[in-house]
Amino acid sequence: MNSIKAMAPATVANVSCGFDIFGFAVESPCDEVILTLRDEPGVVITSITGDGGRLPTDANRNTAGVAVQEYLKATGYNQGIAIELNKHLPLGSGMGSSAASSVAALVAVNHLMGNPLKRDELLPFAMEAERVACGSAHADNVAPSLLGGFVLIRSYEPLDVTRIPTPDDLYCTLIHPQLELKTEDSRNVLKASVPLRDAVRQWGNIAGLVVGLMKPDYGLIGRSLQDYIAEPLRSVLIPGFDRIKETAVQAGALGAGISGSGPTIFALSVSAATAKKVGEAIRDEFEGFRVESEVYVSRINAMGATVESVEQKENIV
Amino acid sequence: MNSIKAMAPATVANVSCGFDIFGFAVESPCDEVILTLRDEPGVVITSITGDGGRLPTDANRNTAGVAVQEYLKATGYNQGIAIELNKHLPLGSGMGSSAASSVAALVAVNHLMGNPLKRDELLPFAMEAERVACGSAHADNVAPSLLGGFVLIRSYEPLDVTRIPTPDDLYCTLIHPQLELKTEDSRNVLKASVPLRDAVRQWGNIAGLVVGLMKPDYGLIGRSLQDYIAEPLRSVLIPGFDRIKETAVQAGALGAGISGSGPTIFALSVSAATAKKVGEAIRDEFEGFRVESEVYVSRINAMGATVESVEQKENIV
Repeated sequence: MNSIKAMAPATVANVSCGFDIFGFAVESPCDEVILTLRDEPGVVITSITGDGGRLPTDANRNTAGVAVQEYLKATGYNQGIAIELNKHLPLGSGMGSSAASSVAALVAVNHLMGNPLKRDELLPFAMEAERVACGSAHADNVAPSLLGGFVLIRSYEPLDVTRIPTPDDLYCTLIHPQLELKTEDSRNVLKASVPLRDAVRQWGNIAGLVVGLMKPDYGLIGRSLQDYIAEPLRSVLIPGFDRIKETAVQAGALGAGISGSGPTIFALSVSAATAKKVGEAIRDEFEGFRVESEVYVSRINAMGATVESVEQKENIV
Repeated sequence: MNSIKAMAPATVANVSCGFDIFGFAVESPCDEVILTLRDEPGVVITSITGDGGRLPTDANRNTAGVAVQEYLKATGYNQGIAIELNKHLPLGSGMGSSAASSVAALVAVNHLMGNPLKRDELLPFAMEAERVACGSAHADNVAPSLLGGFVLIRSYEPLDVTRIPTPDDLYCTLIHPQLELKTEDSRNVLKASVPLRDAVRQWGNIAGLVVGLMKPDYGLIGRSLQDYIAEPLRSVLIPGFDRIKETAVQAGALGAGISGSGPTIFALSVSAATAKKVGEAIRDEFEGFRVESEVYVSRINAMGATVESVEQKENIV
C-alpha cells in the first residue's frame, strides 16, 4: 500500500458556553485527503479541489502540509509524501475547516507508516497546524475531528483532553450562511478580562451542559446553551442573530449558538426531524437578510476521522 | 405533635473551581434545631448551645429565626414557634454554619405544619436567611444542606439547582483550624473581573470536575480541583496553605482546597482510610504553625437535612 484516503469531519467548537474548552464532531461535511508515497523526499501538495483556488499549495502554509511535516519531523521518517486535498468544508465558516484537513492528513500519514502513533498522539501535530492557520494552537476543533465525540480540553499545559458521553438521540444542525469571518478577526473582538459576575454565570452553564449531556437532561442542556463571553461580542457580525436563536428554539431546538468563531450557526435537537425543521427555519431567517445558506443535519460523530485504502495511482508513484 | 427535632449537615461550597456554583453536604457535623409550637404568636429563640454565646437570640437576626419567619410569612401560617438551637458546626468556619441552622429550622417548621412544601420549595427562605447572615442570598451552602448530595447552582435568576451524581466511594475530610474568617472579609479580597485566560482555565476545571464525578474518573477529579479565582487570594489568610495542599495529595487525597470562604480545608479521597490519613497529615501541618484543628471524615451526604419527632415538652407549650 502506498496511497491512502482519509476523511475528517467538521466540528463545532465552543458550543455556546464552553469557549476554548468544548468541541464536538458532526458526521458531515468531511474533508478528504489522499496521501501517496513518493520517491523524492519532501512533502508536496499536488492538488486541491473545492477551495475555489484560495488555499495555499505551499506545504509550509497549508494545514495538511504542516501537519504531515510535523508528523514526519517528530517520528523521524524521511519519506516523500504527495497530498491531494478535496475540501468539502467551507473556508472561514467556523466549522473547523483547517482542522479537518490537517486531521485527515495526519490519520492518513500515520496509517501509511503502519500506525506507529495512537490517535491522541497525533493531536500536537494538528494543533501546530492550527497555529499556522489561525495564529494559536487551539485543540477545540482538531481534538473532536481526530477523536470523535464531544470533547473537553480541560487544560493545555499539560494537554488534558477527555471525551464527554452524549445521548444517542442528540442531533446537530449546522447552518452555514454565505458570509465569511476570519477566526483572527473574530478573536480580536474578545476582551482580555471578564466581569466576575459573568464568569460565574458562564461556569454555571458549563457545568449545567456537562450534567445535562451525561444524565441526560435535555431541559438542562437547553438552559445551559448560553454564552456571556464571546457570543455577545461576535454575534454583531451575524445579521439577525438574536432572531435566529429564537427561531431555532421555536422550531424545537434545545438551543443554538455560534459554531466556533462563526458565522455558522449550530443547534442541538432531540430528533433528526426536529433538527431538519430547525435548519429550514434558520435558512428562511437568513433568506430574509438575502443571505443564502447551506444546512447539514447529523448526529454527533462518535468515530472522528476515518481511513480507507485506495487503489495505487501509477502516475504519482 | 407539637415539637420536632431536625438536623442539617455541614457543607463544602465552591469545591475549588466552582466558585458560587458548587456545594456538597457531608455527614457530620450537623446542627440541631428543636421547634415547638407555642400559644403566643411570634417566633422566639429560647436557647442556643454550642456557640459560646456569640449568636444573636433575636429571631430577626438569627438565621434559624429569619428562615422560620420567612416560611410563616410565605405560607400564611399565623403560628407561634419556639426555637432551641444546638450548634455543632463551628462559627465562621467555611462549613456552612449559618446555612445548617436555617435549613434545620426550615425542615422542622415545614414538618410541624404537615409538610405543605416540598424540600426544594424551602430553598428561597434559607437563601433569605443567608442574606441576613453574610450579606448575600447565596445557595451554595443551603442547597446541599437541604437537598443533600453534590449540587450545582446553574443560575440564580431564575434559580436552577441540579444534583450531580457522585461515586459512592468518595470521602471528604474537613479540617477546621482554630482561625476565624468572616465570609464578608473573605469576599472582599475578590476582584471584580477575571483575566479571560484564567476564566478559561477555570471552566476547563469545572467541566473536568463534573465529568470526573459522573464517569467517575478519579484522576480527572484530582486534576480539576484547582481554583484560579478565589483560592489564590483567599489562601493568604490561611498559614501554610500551599504546603497543606501538597501534604493532602502526598497523603493520598485526590485534591484539596478551601471549604467555602475558609479557613476550613476540604480534601477528597477514594477511601475512608485515606481520608482519615489525610486529616491527620493536615492537622500535623497546622500544628507546625501552632494552630489546633478539628478533623471530620465522612462520605458525601446524599440525604441532606433529616427530621425526627421529639417528646412533648410541657414547660414550653
